[in-house]
Amino acid sequence: MRLRAPVVLPCDPACSVLRDAVVDVTADGRLGFVGPASDAPPTGQPTRRLDGILLPGLVNAHAHSPMTLLRGMGGDLPLLRWLHEVIWPAEARLRPSDVYAGMLLGCVEMLRAGVTTSAEMYFHGDEVARAVLAAGSRLVFAGPLIDLPGMDWRATLAGLDAWIDADGLRSGPGERIEVGYGAHSAYMLTPDALTTIAESATTRGALVQIHVAETADEDTEQRATYGSVPAMLAKLGILDGRVLAAHGVHLDDRDIEVFAANGVGVAHCPGSNAKLASGIARLVELRRAGIAVGLGTDGPASNDDLDLWEEVRLAAMFARLATGDATAVTAPDALLLATRGGADALGRNDIGALEPGRWADLVHLRADDSAFVGGLAVPDPQLLANLVWAAGSRPVTDVWVAGEQVLADGTPTRVDAGEALAGARAASNRLLR
Amino acid sequence: MRLRAPVVLPCDPACSVLRDAVVDVTADGRLGFVGPASDAPPTGQPTRRLDGILLPGLVNAHAHSPMTLLRGMGGDLPLLRWLHEVIWPAEARLRPSDVYAGMLLGCVEMLRAGVTTSAEMYFHGDEVARAVLAAGSRLVFAGPLIDLPGMDWRATLAGLDAWIDADGLRSGPGERIEVGYGAHSAYMLTPDALTTIAESATTRGALVQIHVAETADEDTEQRATYGSVPAMLAKLGILDGRVLAAHGVHLDDRDIEVFAANGVGVAHCPGSNAKLASGIARLVELRRAGIAVGLGTDGPASNDDLDLWEEVRLAAMFARLATGDATAVTAPDALLLATRGGADALGRNDIGALEPGRWADLVHLRADDSAFVGGLAVPDPQLLANLVWAAGSRPVTDVWVAGEQVLADGTPTRVDAGEALAGARAASNRLLR
Repeated sequence: MRLRAPVVLPCDPACSVLRDAVVDVTADGRLGFVGPASDAPPTGQPTRRLDGILLPGLVNAHAHSPMTLLRGMGGDLPLLRWLHEVIWPAEARLRPSDVYAGMLLGCVEMLRAGVTTSAEMYFHGDEVARAVLAAGSRLVFAGPLIDLPGMDWRATLAGLDAWIDADGLRSGPGERIEVGYGAHSAYMLTPDALTTIAESATTRGALVQIHVAETADEDTEQRATYGSVPAMLAKLGILDGRVLAAHGVHLDDRDIEVFAANGVGVAHCPGSNAKLASGIARLVELRRAGIAVGLGTDGPASNDDLDLWEEVRLAAMFARLATGDATAVTAPDALLLATRGGADALGRNDIGALEPGRWADLVHLRADDSAFVGGLAVPDPQLLANLVWAAGSRPVTDVWVAGEQVLADGTPTRVDAGEALAGARAASNRLLR
Repeated sequence: MRLRAPVVLPCDPACSVLRDAVVDVTADGRLGFVGPASDAPPTGQPTRRLDGILLPGLVNAHAHSPMTLLRGMGGDLPLLRWLHEVIWPAEARLRPSDVYAGMLLGCVEMLRAGVTTSAEMYFHGDEVARAVLAAGSRLVFAGPLIDLPGMDWRATLAGLDAWIDADGLRSGPGERIEVGYGAHSAYMLTPDALTTIAESATTRGALVQIHVAETADEDTEQRATYGSVPAMLAKLGILDGRVLAAHGVHLDDRDIEVFAANGVGVAHCPGSNAKLASGIARLVELRRAGIAVGLGTDGPASNDDLDLWEEVRLAAMFARLATGDATAVTAPDALLLATRGGADALGRNDIGALEPGRWADLVHLRADDSAFVGGLAVPDPQLLANLVWAAGSRPVTDVWVAGEQVLADGTPTRVDAGEALAGARAASNRLLR
């Protein structure tokens, strides 16, 4: 298949804007030639002409998407009352089939926003994966490991080991499913547990996703003992493998050095961190240190949507507020965070950009949205500003994952959006009792 | 006409949620009974049943909407280069008919987002008003008064005086047009000019809209002489009449006291202030002082859209970041800022809430958006959280202004949205030369 569009954004490091360009998709769902139509090699494939902007599918680098079911529950209660009175009682009623229903709705919402991959830390990984395969999106799963009474992290760990050993690190059509380890946090796991988890992950080349420094006071104990959570993780050898640190709000210069030296990726979650009053992560300093930074929505119980384009805008706004510099993070910078940056943060070089060999995860936005007031033939900086600051998810019409169209004219092709909502509604209402 | 919906949000000070409620619209476009269907008086009028949420039209308390034409131009250039190299040269090419085209597109965008009223400071007020009347929305106009070479503020002032003296303060069908004075700022006008403008406004009971303390360094001179811009405005007697201060980012405690004592309203523009790295206005302190605060998008050249729901979320997020308190501004607090708060800030008690006697400016959001994952029959705090944090403008289907339906199923009834975009595109492309 060859796609041809007036604008293609490959999301290369320079955030190039290709005009009248083509994107070739191979029979196995990967990208072939990407470039100007005038340079394209002959193809025996049919060409589909699109009228808008084609770019890589966005990467949500940190989410708990099945929590669509808990969206808005408790309203704006203070955090501890919200957790104790609303969220935990509701989650205690959660059945595996609910996780499927919540994740399926999450997949539908993300596809409609042009998000093709999400990194998910949630219970019942088999249900999460089943929903992703049903919707046709892409998953980087982290099985949640928490050392609390009633939660047997060793059993979960053994299950994740077995999953990877049986299916391989990546599996499913178009390698849609990657399995890894969700070490919840340094305050929910003992150093011994963290080391054990890291051994499982490193042996298998798997990604460890871990919450780090989300709030100012969570790591008081580790800070007293080790200096900081990053220092502790480094000392325990956990940073030797692939690691994604979610949030990373309260990092000092030394922490950033530790992450940079160890190739740790960061999932920046500006919306969640603002809504919960956690603070603003030091995006400019993280980028300056050469750290791979992606964007995450966090769970829709606390954000409350899965529209990564809002995080794109928030990341740029917050960096500008934090630095007092209106050019600190530009529109193209912010777009790259949500695409190539997310892939890099997850240690993936097969998604997040339109380059030969990567998976053909693609998003098309229609051109007739009034965000593009001057049309598409405006100078590149204006086009990118229109896309990031004014269009966002609204004009998304079509999405492909591994070359397969999974959203057509705003409608999921694999699942019925109305049924997905109805299923989630039934589950959500039951949790509310 | 009687409207009946499963949820009606009158936007009273408590942000009540009415279930299965009706809203009566009188023949002259004002509100009659608003309350539970079970309490509704008999009506000889037909009842239209809606399936979603009915609330007052939102009030954009500070905008320069014709700048849709300049949206994204120059991308993320630093402010001074952006103004000198892109915006001012483009505005110099602006014809009156361009202002109409830009404002018309702005009206379409605002109606689609459920914004029925906007406070506008821009040139060619007759064209701004003509576009508003064409689209059927509502305008609080401020003719821009700037003391710069080539700009004859005395002539503009005389024109505004004459406009009000001829047509009255409010005119048009459903009193859709209010005319007032746009004293640009204390740094663009001499104290003498400000006093003269204030005299014109006070004599006529008209609103003065003025930019105050948008950036940290704009008022260095006034601060040296008078202590601060608010102190100077008070001293010059300008705060004796109706005044809306736009932005108000850099206000100290004394400034806030001055505003509160003089009944000055504030248009909080969080998105613009963040994107331009101007800072975060002290929303919590302003509210605590009893100041009427509304929300503004500012101009779409610098924001870049006219979706006030985004400002609703940003206002809550920024207040939480600034205070470290996740309950500082709740979802209902934020919703009230965009409705009742905006009306109060503009000194208007005839819009912004569903109360008998006010204008029937109404918005309906459909219920089948997945933001409302649990449906509408969830507890009030959850419903309001879903509306503010997850739904926003996306499910807006229908809008009425002064009882007249101006948006039906997402489509403007008065103007052709495609033609409005085409007109704006032609104008925008010409400005770019």
